[in-house]
Amino acid sequence: MGVIVPLVEPEELSALIRRALREDLGPGDLTTDWLIPPEARGRAVIVTRKTGIACGLNVAGLVFSSVDPGTILAASVAEGERVAEGQELARVEGSLAAILKGERVALNFVQRLSGIATRTAKLVVLLGGTKARLIDTRKTTPGLRALEKYAVRVGGGANHRFGLFDGVLIKDNHIKAAGGITRAVALLRARVPHTVKIEVEVENLAELGEALAAGADVVMLDNMSVAEMARAVRLVGGRIPLEASGGIDDQNIAAVAATGVDLISVGALTHTIQPLDVSLEVL
Amino acid sequence: MGVIVPLVEPEELSALIRRALREDLGPGDLTTDWLIPPEARGRAVIVTRKTGIACGLNVAGLVFSSVDPGTILAASVAEGERVAEGQELARVEGSLAAILKGERVALNFVQRLSGIATRTAKLVVLLGGTKARLIDTRKTTPGLRALEKYAVRVGGGANHRFGLFDGVLIKDNHIKAAGGITRAVALLRARVPHTVKIEVEVENLAELGEALAAGADVVMLDNMSVAEMARAVRLVGGRIPLEASGGIDDQNIAAVAATGVDLISVGALTHTIQPLDVSLEVL
Amino acid sequence: MGVIVPLVEPEELSALIRRALREDLGPGDLTTDWLIPPEARGRAVIVTRKTGIACGLNVAGLVFSSVDPGTILAASVAEGERVAEGQELARVEGSLAAILKGERVALNFVQRLSGIATRTAKLVVLLGGTKARLIDTRKTTPGLRALEKYAVRVGGGANHRFGLFDGVLIKDNHIKAAGGITRAVALLRARVPHTVKIEVEVENLAELGEALAAGADVVMLDNMSVAEMARAVRLVGGRIPLEASGGIDDQNIAAVAATGVDLISVGALTHTIQPLDVSLEVL
Amino acid sequence: MGVIVPLVEPEELSALIRRALREDLGPGDLTTDWLIPPEARGRAVIVTRKTGIACGLNVAGLVFSSVDPGTILAASVAEGERVAEGQELARVEGSLAAILKGERVALNFVQRLSGIATRTAKLVVLLGGTKARLIDTRKTTPGLRALEKYAVRVGGGANHRFGLFDGVLIKDNHIKAAGGITRAVALLRARVPHTVKIEVEVENLAELGEALAAGADVVMLDNMSVAEMARAVRLVGGRIPLEASGGIDDQNIAAVAATGVDLISVGALTHTIQPLDVSLEVL
Amino acid sequence: MGVIVPLVEPEELSALIRRALREDLGPGDLTTDWLIPPEARGRAVIVTRKTGIACGLNVAGLVFSSVDPGTILAASVAEGERVAEGQELARVEGSLAAILKGERVALNFVQRLSGIATRTAKLVVLLGGTKARLIDTRKTTPGLRALEKYAVRVGGGANHRFGLFDGVLIKDNHIKAAGGITRAVALLRARVPHTVKIEVEVENLAELGEALAAGADVVMLDNMSVAEMARAVRLVGGRIPLEASGGIDDQNIAAVAATGVDLISVGALTHTIQPLDVSLEVL
Amino acid sequence: MGVIVPLVEPEELSALIRRALREDLGPGDLTTDWLIPPEARGRAVIVTRKTGIACGLNVAGLVFSSVDPGTILAASVAEGERVAEGQELARVEGSLAAILKGERVALNFVQRLSGIATRTAKLVVLLGGTKARLIDTRKTTPGLRALEKYAVRVGGGANHRFGLFDGVLIKDNHIKAAGGITRAVALLRARVPHTVKIEVEVENLAELGEALAAGADVVMLDNMSVAEMARAVRLVGGRIPLEASGGIDDQNIAAVAATGVDLISVGALTHTIQPLDVSLEVL
Repeated sequence: MGVIVPLVEPEELSALIRRALREDLGPGDLTTDWLIPPEARGRAVIVTRKTGIACGLNVAGLVFSSVDPGTILAASVAEGERVAEGQELARVEGSLAAILKGERVALNFVQRLSGIATRTAKLVVLLGGTKARLIDTRKTTPGLRALEKYAVRVGGGANHRFGLFDGVLIKDNHIKAAGGITRAVALLRARVPHTVKIEVEVENLAELGEALAAGADVVMLDNMSVAEMARAVRLVGGRIPLEASGGIDDQNIAAVAATGVDLISVGALTHTIQPLDVSLEVL
Repeated sequence: MGVIVPLVEPEELSALIRRALREDLGPGDLTTDWLIPPEARGRAVIVTRKTGIACGLNVAGLVFSSVDPGTILAASVAEGERVAEGQELARVEGSLAAILKGERVALNFVQRLSGIATRTAKLVVLLGGTKARLIDTRKTTPGLRALEKYAVRVGGGANHRFGLFDGVLIKDNHIKAAGGITRAVALLRARVPHTVKIEVEVENLAELGEALAAGADVVMLDNMSVAEMARAVRLVGGRIPLEASGGIDDQNIAAVAATGVDLISVGALTHTIQPLDVSLEVL
Repeated sequence: MGVIVPLVEPEELSALIRRALREDLGPGDLTTDWLIPPEARGRAVIVTRKTGIACGLNVAGLVFSSVDPGTILAASVAEGERVAEGQELARVEGSLAAILKGERVALNFVQRLSGIATRTAKLVVLLGGTKARLIDTRKTTPGLRALEKYAVRVGGGANHRFGLFDGVLIKDNHIKAAGGITRAVALLRARVPHTVKIEVEVENLAELGEALAAGADVVMLDNMSVAEMARAVRLVGGRIPLEASGGIDDQNIAAVAATGVDLISVGALTHTIQPLDVSLEVL
Repeated sequence: MGVIVPLVEPEELSALIRRALREDLGPGDLTTDWLIPPEARGRAVIVTRKTGIACGLNVAGLVFSSVDPGTILAASVAEGERVAEGQELARVEGSLAAILKGERVALNFVQRLSGIATRTAKLVVLLGGTKARLIDTRKTTPGLRALEKYAVRVGGGANHRFGLFDGVLIKDNHIKAAGGITRAVALLRARVPHTVKIEVEVENLAELGEALAAGADVVMLDNMSVAEMARAVRLVGGRIPLEASGGIDDQNIAAVAATGVDLISVGALTHTIQPLDVSLEVL
Repeated sequence: MGVIVPLVEPEELSALIRRALREDLGPGDLTTDWLIPPEARGRAVIVTRKTGIACGLNVAGLVFSSVDPGTILAASVAEGERVAEGQELARVEGSLAAILKGERVALNFVQRLSGIATRTAKLVVLLGGTKARLIDTRKTTPGLRALEKYAVRVGGGANHRFGLFDGVLIKDNHIKAAGGITRAVALLRARVPHTVKIEVEVENLAELGEALAAGADVVMLDNMSVAEMARAVRLVGGRIPLEASGGIDDQNIAAVAATGVDLISVGALTHTIQPLDVSLEVL
Repeated sequence: MGVIVPLVEPEELSALIRRALREDLGPGDLTTDWLIPPEARGRAVIVTRKTGIACGLNVAGLVFSSVDPGTILAASVAEGERVAEGQELARVEGSLAAILKGERVALNFVQRLSGIATRTAKLVVLLGGTKARLIDTRKTTPGLRALEKYAVRVGGGANHRFGLFDGVLIKDNHIKAAGGITRAVALLRARVPHTVKIEVEVENLAELGEALAAGADVVMLDNMSVAEMARAVRLVGGRIPLEASGGIDDQNIAAVAATGVDLISVGALTHTIQPLDVSLEVL
């Protein structure tokens, strides 16, 4: 399994697809297995009924080939390409039974991933010419994190850390337990691999000052007003990156970006799903 | 593992939770493992910031006890209970490190499942005093079908078939391949277990007539207008149940229900996710 | 993996075969791995020593190709074909070591599945020209249900529900717990997916009457005498299908069928195994 | 998991039981989950309707506790005990839903394993006072070998090697490939661990002589007549153990044993299954 | 499963232990299962025959409790404690059979992990009072990385990144493919999460200069002489951490540390295993 | 999967490789996935920097093809071939990204396995012209036993039993529990399959005498002096094989072999790992 989806581990992806198929097919597709002769060949197209950003056609391809290795999907558009209402996204060719059995699972992936990419792209536009980078969070669907983070990238966003293991983020509960920001940063600096940055979540400028003094590599400004964020940016003066977080949406993201923060994280990218409306038509 | 979540197979649920935790924790939580002493005890509450229907606290409980068997969640509200902004949903008590490590995964489940239950409950209200039953579809998140169908039930809806294996639904592609509705129904009647009903998807009244004559047990009216559906209901006269499907939303669901259909299926119950906003606070 | 065995999920089948091989091969085949050069080629035939119905050669093919992808089985007879003593069932060609290592596992599948198909076919003949359908039960070998139900179909029988999840069967214990047949049917009707039929097990005509009145979709006549079954058939008058169950064997099955019941379930189809005697001969 | 079933690896057993339950329960037991309140308690007995040897009650216990850890089976008879028609084999107590959900899987194990033990015990009696040891073969049900070999021991038989990895058995195909018995034995003696015995399958006395000269540790007499076996026993004179194999049944086993062979292997012990008729009754 | 071994994911650890036990026990322990009554109780001590650093007794505890939940290991020394020849490391109490069956696997873990900790501690001493931090590499045993990195920490060392996913290390092949250090750093800075540091491997001072100018967060000095490293330290002047790597052993580590590098990575910590000689004695 | 590595079960090997890759790659290779275009092709050589015995190139080949099926390793030397400093061991060709992502895991296997083969070969030479066979023990790395035992064979050694399931070895604790050597041998003789030899561990000549009288098939002389072993050899006079065990190393192995023992087991073959120094160079 080569790099079908960048930064998504191929074995994990293939296990995820097998589970999704098993969930839908169980001991067999009563309708298709009894009606469609196994040797029947078929062709189908996947089309979108709405405008958006295409994402997940590579995953859909794996779904069909998992049902039957001879059933192949050829994408008609690139991952991340903007598509118009009614546009063809892909062609599938092979076993008719496999097309019908894989259809729903394939579409379930494509509509969610394209929905995430579409929403991400919309927010990226709102960042205008600022230097702010739109990033995701850990508020992802259980089991689908790698794919959902991939969809964010496809939509033009970037990723925060993958999980709890590849980045340090000191939150209020950690600070309390450690006895303050200064002590928490010092303890972690002494212990975590030198390859990992230490980010601290702060709620006001006093905490920001302490985090800076403690040597934090990044600071997250949690639920601050735009005015406060602007002050934070001035206070830091570019010494370290600042991440804006909490309650950011279409309405206020441009203002947040204009404060000069380096990163803007939006949980809704992956926790609120508005799927792209796609369908499969057998030709 | 007893019946923690009805109609969700305990082994599958526990495997799903293990995967979700592994996805987030990987080889370990850098922040918590280095800052929080393993013997530290903690207590926390899960609260909602929005009004809605509570769902998935049982799953969250399994998340915490999977991280550490001594960390226990006690729900403060019943599954399916309506909750108000700021209301406490549950208390968690045990290892402080386990609470912090399980927090995000637990909330990721609760916010999605409560979101589905909340949306379902809203639509159920719109059905008014009609006999129509609100049901879900197979447009679920890959890997989460059993839980999402559970959330639909918690919200007051009912389930369609689980997958391709426990019900027959003859769609247009099957009809074409079989050479007509009559032949498709006859073939399947001869072959599928006698315990399974045969449902046929039709697009107009002529097809409905053919399905009735062929002996279909249920008919799905696909993307029909409200007027057409009303005619279909009259034509069938209660002999078999009718399912309305396609493009049904808050705006038109009352009118659809008023036609007298028996079942109304809404894909958005599980494909469009508006999470309930919940958070965990360490006390 | 396309449809090698209808209604047997390919991933599950391949996992089952891998487990069967691992069980037999463990860390390696001491005799073959040390005696047979890996590059040696071989050809073999599978022959039957008894008359019967061939079944499971597709599964045997997967066994050999799991040991070595270049070792291929070509069936000489169709699944379900009647075979005579000494007849060739299949040819295997490829790695000699793979043939010897897969032999026992392949035959273990073929002899059991052919045995089930053979026994089923024998009973089907006894049904004569009646409308009764011979069906299996859940008394299958743990882990092999899908394959054993497949063998029943190959032998000319049909399947009952697959398991507890795809059909409702209300038995005496359920009736007691629910407080009567009427209440049990009503509760389940309100709750289970509309795609699933509700079957009730009854022990006498009074219960049958109650089940009919309660709106059961199917009724199972449990351990009734032939005379009682005949009365039940008259009482129901074709309104719903009736299943005869309990103590049915070669001796009485024709009489049971003659009562006019629609379905006859026989646990012995899968719980009593008389294998077809098959062997593999290296050429 | 301690030693619940000797020589059956606890993890493998528990995985087998989980698979068997998943096979039957799938996404849930429609009847029980909707009818039986999860908090309802129940008690049941397992009784036999036929005389035989009890086996597999420990496995049944694991089935119930896998469905619900609080549902416990207490065996009323010991493994291997002879039981009479109508005798109570075990009591189960705990969640009523768990009892109903685990019933079929538990009985499917008990009836098969008791069937094997019963048949084994019957043949052991026929060996009379001879020194012959009744042993099984590799003709076991895929996935159940360890349990079936356990049932043979419970019935008073003994086991042959477990699989291809823990014993050497040189058969005709190996002999051909190696260029003769002498060369095959020499090659294997030089290569296999010193802890493993080398057994050779022979079809006549000439081959037996060659195997003896080559230094075989055990010889299997394949499909020989009773007279030939008696000659083989005299020829060997007790220097190495002799195994009789092929076509041995109730009719001829006493005569075979009387020849003085050390071991008698009977494939039917595990390939022909006549289950003990057992049932569960909720009290 | 609480935090038994910090930064080792409990599910992964328990799966690793199950595999190790299955590898050794296969279908059962012939000697113990047939000789030791399952109800026999036993006590044992684990002692060391050599001086060293104790590590992995927590893992050994999991081994015994995996064989039998009632068999408990109580460590007599803390993880990381220096132990003397003949000293007791732990006591095990519970099922005698479980002690005998788990013994070898438990010791196989303890002797390797203690060996790694012992070797690490020896090198840490040689660093004297310098600021250099001794770190490991990815040259770990396949399947055991988390445990081996744990043993390095127990011995007083620290960890480099866990794998390819939680840190960036640009090596010569990456530099060639990207077209130079400057371009590689720029590309990665634009793409990887902001939580991850970018480390560049350099082979001379010119490359070091380029890496510094490109904005590398850390630089690895690959196979440089001590004199060159000293020049590198002066050139960098503390702006970023420097890692010394390649060919570092007991002989030269003090000299390397004296150059003022911040990190010293030694592959031999995990690729060369000199086990601590430990044994288990049943009392 | 045919016989890539003799006596290593292909499914187990492939699962081991998948785990090793997942351990290193996690959700993706940050450096390679962002720098190396997926379509870039590459070629590389694996070379050794030290003299030794090559082993594990077949395993390395599976590593690369697991990352990407089109990336192929061609071995330049045979398994077990003696290689000189700087010699090319293999060429890898295919996806450049796959080569870089698989490199470390592939080398981690090759360097350990070649290290074991190299050490084994060195000891085999020291056995000179004696009949003694050098064998391994169960002191292997958890999870790698089959591969490490393969490396011992590649180096010219032989294997002891694989685990606890394929050979009987009665140790002091078993003897105590059984009440003496005589009783232990008798009990096991009556119970274990006739295909398995019974080996007894003894500590002095008295015990050796008892083991002989009891009918042990093999005796292990545990930690005896060379003089004692010589006496043991004379006492046994070739009736059964004798295994020398305990404290055997380069210094004394020739003397041990000269006593006339049949087998010499050395735990250090697999518990002490001195890897062969190998590296991969992209061309």
